[in-house]
Amino acid sequence: MGAASLVELTKKAMADIIKAVSVNIERINPQQVEKFIGMLIEARRNGRKILVIGAGRSGLVGRAFAMRLMHLSFHVHVVGETITPALEKDDVLVAISGSGTTTLVVTAARIAKKVGAKVVAITSHPRSPLGKCADHVVVVYGRTKLAKKRDYFSRQILGVHEPLAPLGTIFEVATSVFLDALIVELMRKLGLTEKDMRARHATIEPP
Amino acid sequence: MGAASLVELTKKAMADIIKAVSVNIERINPQQVEKFIGMLIEARRNGRKILVIGAGRSGLVGRAFAMRLMHLSFHVHVVGETITPALEKDDVLVAISGSGTTTLVVTAARIAKKVGAKVVAITSHPRSPLGKCADHVVVVYGRTKLAKKRDYFSRQILGVHEPLAPLGTIFEVATSVFLDALIVELMRKLGLTEKDMRARHATIEPP
Amino acid sequence: MGAASLVELTKKAMADIIKAVSVNIERINPQQVEKFIGMLIEARRNGRKILVIGAGRSGLVGRAFAMRLMHLSFHVHVVGETITPALEKDDVLVAISGSGTTTLVVTAARIAKKVGAKVVAITSHPRSPLGKCADHVVVVYGRTKLAKKRDYFSRQILGVHEPLAPLGTIFEVATSVFLDALIVELMRKLGLTEKDMRARHATIEPP
Amino acid sequence: MGAASLVELTKKAMADIIKAVSVNIERINPQQVEKFIGMLIEARRNGRKILVIGAGRSGLVGRAFAMRLMHLSFHVHVVGETITPALEKDDVLVAISGSGTTTLVVTAARIAKKVGAKVVAITSHPRSPLGKCADHVVVVYGRTKLAKKRDYFSRQILGVHEPLAPLGTIFEVATSVFLDALIVELMRKLGLTEKDMRARHATIEPP
Repeated sequence: MGAASLVELTKKAMADIIKAVSVNIERINPQQVEKFIGMLIEARRNGRKILVIGAGRSGLVGRAFAMRLMHLSFHVHVVGETITPALEKDDVLVAISGSGTTTLVVTAARIAKKVGAKVVAITSHPRSPLGKCADHVVVVYGRTKLAKKRDYFSRQILGVHEPLAPLGTIFEVATSVFLDALIVELMRKLGLTEKDMRARHATIEPP
Repeated sequence: MGAASLVELTKKAMADIIKAVSVNIERINPQQVEKFIGMLIEARRNGRKILVIGAGRSGLVGRAFAMRLMHLSFHVHVVGETITPALEKDDVLVAISGSGTTTLVVTAARIAKKVGAKVVAITSHPRSPLGKCADHVVVVYGRTKLAKKRDYFSRQILGVHEPLAPLGTIFEVATSVFLDALIVELMRKLGLTEKDMRARHATIEPP
Repeated sequence: MGAASLVELTKKAMADIIKAVSVNIERINPQQVEKFIGMLIEARRNGRKILVIGAGRSGLVGRAFAMRLMHLSFHVHVVGETITPALEKDDVLVAISGSGTTTLVVTAARIAKKVGAKVVAITSHPRSPLGKCADHVVVVYGRTKLAKKRDYFSRQILGVHEPLAPLGTIFEVATSVFLDALIVELMRKLGLTEKDMRARHATIEPP
Repeated sequence: MGAASLVELTKKAMADIIKAVSVNIERINPQQVEKFIGMLIEARRNGRKILVIGAGRSGLVGRAFAMRLMHLSFHVHVVGETITPALEKDDVLVAISGSGTTTLVVTAARIAKKVGAKVVAITSHPRSPLGKCADHVVVVYGRTKLAKKRDYFSRQILGVHEPLAPLGTIFEVATSVFLDALIVELMRKLGLTEKDMRARHATIEPP
């Protein structure tokens, strides 16, 4: 297989991902976004903590979001890291799971509810166990791990027949772009600039 | 500020990110991609390890890539995790840094060269310390932490005046989409399906 | 408070910890240890994976053990790290929890049982949910998070009245010393030397 | 090999570790400890951050310490975790390395000095690159990775001929016990009880 064909497939896959992600982020509900932003801003104003949780690649998307919230001086932590303190009443747990069924994320969300924290679910499935447990849901579509051959959501939408990015890729990239856009909005609302963020940026950046 | 304007800004930022990322991934050099794929496939065939490194959000992008390589039965590790073994001769270090100057990533790349491993740099700056140290460079453009007001690369390209996503966001999302597309290509080349990958997917997914 | 008294307290606390740990590791049951070693060796011989899990500081103790198992060429992973693959039938999950009640560890152990993996619990409480779920238990005493004023185990044993190390410290250090000793035993059984281990030791050691 | 001999070796190794650790912690210099405590308390009083760094198992010892500092309401972070902010002037970097030569730890210590932070090195080798770079050194002996056959420190002291715990084990356990004892001292100095610490203890404890 020559360079040409290689390039073709990688290029096509990039275009497919961008297309699927574009379609999915278009479908995000503005009211759901606004309420989410309100909850974040309120937590910050009241000195409450925000904890972020997700499994696998969704967890990495959550961490990238948490890092930016830290740059914006939110009191934010990632569940499972060393210095993450107790989740307390009125704190906010942001739980990311495409399927909404990831056992340990759902378990964590239920613990959060017990201590009186608020749970925001970012999921493709608002009626999933995670969605039902949450105080607020932001629906981000994507193909999730639940997808079966016939109902690959993004494939139907796009009418593509080629294998798109595997497993939860589309959900993860769409969520990632959505949360990065939210950061732009939060910067504006909080009157913070990139310079402010840079000052908070880790100076020892280990891998 | 009402819901309408909130929605407007988040929507605009999502569109901006998608646009900047689309422009940047279009510019990725096919020959650079092909050589990178070849190095990965060869390492897998010869039972060599692939180690992934990056600082901050670039490190998270690297981890997401490493997870997929694991799903494709590569012998892959993330530098800094518990069971990451010694990097040895002919192993491949994939080092991700937009600026190509992140001290600890450059330090790691130099250690890799000393032990006879091959270094692939994914960076916006091929002439950076990381780029110069690497055996192979894949250039992915983006605004990096080095960007100054006047020369925000993606802003020039896009002619936008609004604040785009801050800091390294565009590089990170572009690299993320590029590496996810590479996974599609690797699936094809290796004859592996999503079903094969699902079988390797963590069954205990902790946050 | 002068240097003398400071020194006194730190010195006293070190001695207390050493004493409590010594008492607790003396009480570890040889048959439980032998069976544990047998399960590890058998997994290694049959090419099965070992996954290690623990929350908080118990998780750190587990990671330190996993790192040494890697140096001894076990196929070992830490639950929650990037490239940790699916737990499969006949794999071994080593679950560390002083109280044996940590929700997410118990949840993980139950998932492990479902897929046909074997669960080894290292806990102070063999009749805890974790202990009951496990195929094999190694009891390591300590004060655990469950301890109440009256029944601080190590205090009774030692007849001390001063505050010993807080929370799960004694369990964690005792487990840590036990697992490090197990590594010495495994080296002998496998005929591996320190030199062999050094060769596997990470050459890029990021923080 | 029967259960008896197995037990013998594990038991012997546990006793050896405890003995070597006891000898080493006895030799810790009280003045070095007192100055370290003073630096931590002062940072806490002045609202300065403490960052902890270490590679491999020393990094895990550092994390265990950081977790307890968090329980005592220190503003503490682990270098390399998601929400670790910039190290700034007058912050304290606690760098743990038995050999004092671990490249990335030394690199980080030098970055810390550049931004005006204070560096505390916990090492067996005060004249190592890390020791020389530090503002303050606490010497904790152990066999380190640098040890060669003839000069195994703890072996000489103890007159043992059997293989003790491999690589940096003794340094790691000794440092771990030392830092846990320091926590007892800090509790006393700060007037904080175990109950206070429990309230800060993570309620969602993921692996």
